[in-house]
Amino acid sequence: MSLIVQKFGGTSVRDTERLFNVARIIADTYDQGHDVVVVVSAQGDTTDDLIEKAHEITDRPDEREMDALLATGEQISAALLTMALKKLGYRAISLTGWQAGFLTDANHGKARVRRINKERIENELDKKNIVVVTGFQGLNRYDDITTLGRGGSDTSAVALAAVLKAKRCQIFTDVPGVYTADPRLVKNAIKLDEITYDEMLELASLGAQVLHNRSVEMAKKYNVKLEVLSSLERVPGTVVKEVCKMEKMLIKGVAKDDNVARISLVGLPDRPGVAFKVFSVMASHNINVDIILQSVGREDTKDITFTVARKDCAEAVQALEEIAPSLGIKKITADENITKVSIVGAGMESNPGVAARMFEALGEANINIHMISTSEIKISVLIDKELGEKAVLAIHRAFFDEV
Amino acid sequence: MSLIVQKFGGTSVRDTERLFNVARIIADTYDQGHDVVVVVSAQGDTTDDLIEKAHEITDRPDEREMDALLATGEQISAALLTMALKKLGYRAISLTGWQAGFLTDANHGKARVRRINKERIENELDKKNIVVVTGFQGLNRYDDITTLGRGGSDTSAVALAAVLKAKRCQIFTDVPGVYTADPRLVKNAIKLDEITYDEMLELASLGAQVLHNRSVEMAKKYNVKLEVLSSLERVPGTVVKEVCKMEKMLIKGVAKDDNVARISLVGLPDRPGVAFKVFSVMASHNINVDIILQSVGREDTKDITFTVARKDCAEAVQALEEIAPSLGIKKITADENITKVSIVGAGMESNPGVAARMFEALGEANINIHMISTSEIKISVLIDKELGEKAVLAIHRAFFDEV
Repeated sequence: MSLIVQKFGGTSVRDTERLFNVARIIADTYDQGHDVVVVVSAQGDTTDDLIEKAHEITDRPDEREMDALLATGEQISAALLTMALKKLGYRAISLTGWQAGFLTDANHGKARVRRINKERIENELDKKNIVVVTGFQGLNRYDDITTLGRGGSDTSAVALAAVLKAKRCQIFTDVPGVYTADPRLVKNAIKLDEITYDEMLELASLGAQVLHNRSVEMAKKYNVKLEVLSSLERVPGTVVKEVCKMEKMLIKGVAKDDNVARISLVGLPDRPGVAFKVFSVMASHNINVDIILQSVGREDTKDITFTVARKDCAEAVQALEEIAPSLGIKKITADENITKVSIVGAGMESNPGVAARMFEALGEANINIHMISTSEIKISVLIDKELGEKAVLAIHRAFFDEV
Repeated sequence: MSLIVQKFGGTSVRDTERLFNVARIIADTYDQGHDVVVVVSAQGDTTDDLIEKAHEITDRPDEREMDALLATGEQISAALLTMALKKLGYRAISLTGWQAGFLTDANHGKARVRRINKERIENELDKKNIVVVTGFQGLNRYDDITTLGRGGSDTSAVALAAVLKAKRCQIFTDVPGVYTADPRLVKNAIKLDEITYDEMLELASLGAQVLHNRSVEMAKKYNVKLEVLSSLERVPGTVVKEVCKMEKMLIKGVAKDDNVARISLVGLPDRPGVAFKVFSVMASHNINVDIILQSVGREDTKDITFTVARKDCAEAVQALEEIAPSLGIKKITADENITKVSIVGAGMESNPGVAARMFEALGEANINIHMISTSEIKISVLIDKELGEKAVLAIHRAFFDEV
């Protein structure tokens, strides 16, 4: 008996009609003789609505309470989806994160899954139940509810697929797969049949908004076969795996990430250990730093510029202001009016012309580049936020219009 | 250090403004040097909205899933209220039913509290935290979420007050206390300073909608000092206790309960054990039966008429239809177009004129009585639903206009 994990995002379960649509997909899989474990996100805008409620009360909601609040979104959709499955005549049961045995660290708002105690899920599968698990959440060792951060339901699904040794982990969303660019933005974006974990990882972390990056990392680590597909069209999606077939495409996609802020530290004394101090403070606040650029300033000083997720910007600036006097930082500036545009592809390694073609496309579109960052399979640039869409279109045209 | 339990209903926490209002009441109590445990209901219409969502999916939602769904309402308000308390600068923590140690039986939708494991709450109180507990819910021994039924947050509050040996259990609502009738209906209804547990019990179970009857039973059993008061006006409320001061009032109040349905079984064979069979079936479905009337029918048969809560009516009729052939029941009818109007007062025992005065008031108002039920401290009549308000006004006038 093979087991399939199916994860459905918020738009896939946003109302009663969609819940029944999803229930029928699950039921068909079950009827094919599979055990099915379902992971479900909160309905539609539920999570945003809950965040708004909290922000009506306070600018900085307590993180533990925020997790207790947000976890309700998935609990609602899991219960409703289970009711829909039962209405269709199937055996089903909903489990919250803690009922499903998700044990995490105590890092509220972005907890990591430490262990899954799979006993309850296996018991329910033995009873031939379809098991509907709330995504995005778990329990820490203090018995407090934690959440895995935005997009954490993907992580929940992959973690379950790994622990339960699922045949496949299907991530259902509102698009039919992974595209060369956001199809809402680029009309002639091309759907990919396959993509490597590494490419997907870059695309996910770069804001392609299809899969959560931690879920792809985890899939790669435990070799979970991922498939991204639409809950609305019954067509094959994009398979994410270790190695793809040879193909002509130099790059797999163009991604834009608006959730980025740039922080500049001006006038640091040019002595060893200063950069270490800055970034260890960021680490101690659990703030991920992305692109880093260090440049020589005036009169024996240097400047450090780096990017963080936009939500971490205020906290980062506050933390830096506290250490600024002792480090001799003269000025701290933060800029949220920027966006990051990136191209990704395992093929670019052996094709030195890729970067040139990207910069040429941006230059012709009259778009100024503030920062550049590269890895073996990606090139990212930081540009003004209002030019983001124009940049994606220009780059996509340069790489894909002749394909 | 004395401990006070404060329970806030849905209207008291319905939006951000009300949440802060409640937070200030709690903070004032804490500032007076008390330990404070708060029990909170779901905001405003949240529970009704969730029920509606479930009913969009299925007529008969699975009860386990319904509990998982409904429990989110209190989880949301508890987290938000805790954020508000923290915003005001107080130490506070929210606990769900299962985190607060509420262990119940497995009776989904109307579970009973079996035990409260108070370790976590006491630990949080030791840390000087204000503890905000989700009302209405607990955990059964299968680790499934249960709910205590409508109004169950009152029960949660009283149970906590009993277990934690609280000095007082304050039930905050949107009215300033217990009135001689629903003040929304009867403009000159009088607020009572005191009422006995027994009187309150009758008023609660009769639909006065101020306190949940199970909570009053529990308060009586464990001698918990209850106070019903408004979260909007800072004035003393109504104290519920064992014995009240002597006073002139023959009755304490007039209550109307629309949540009632009448089921009639026509043409039962007139032999022993038939009534037992009928009501043991009701008991096996956990359906509470209220007023029972048995009358002689035609040709060696009898009729049994009784009332149940409206929500149980469909299930009751279905259960009875299953046993009808074997019992020889000829016809089952159900009528939801009725209401129950009652008067309550410990003073009526020694005043035989009370019933007469009630029936006279109804007669003068031209209201026909279908069924009558009496106890030592109450008289209930069943009348047509559309005459309910008229009846309450007529009765209240007869007893209280001269007070």
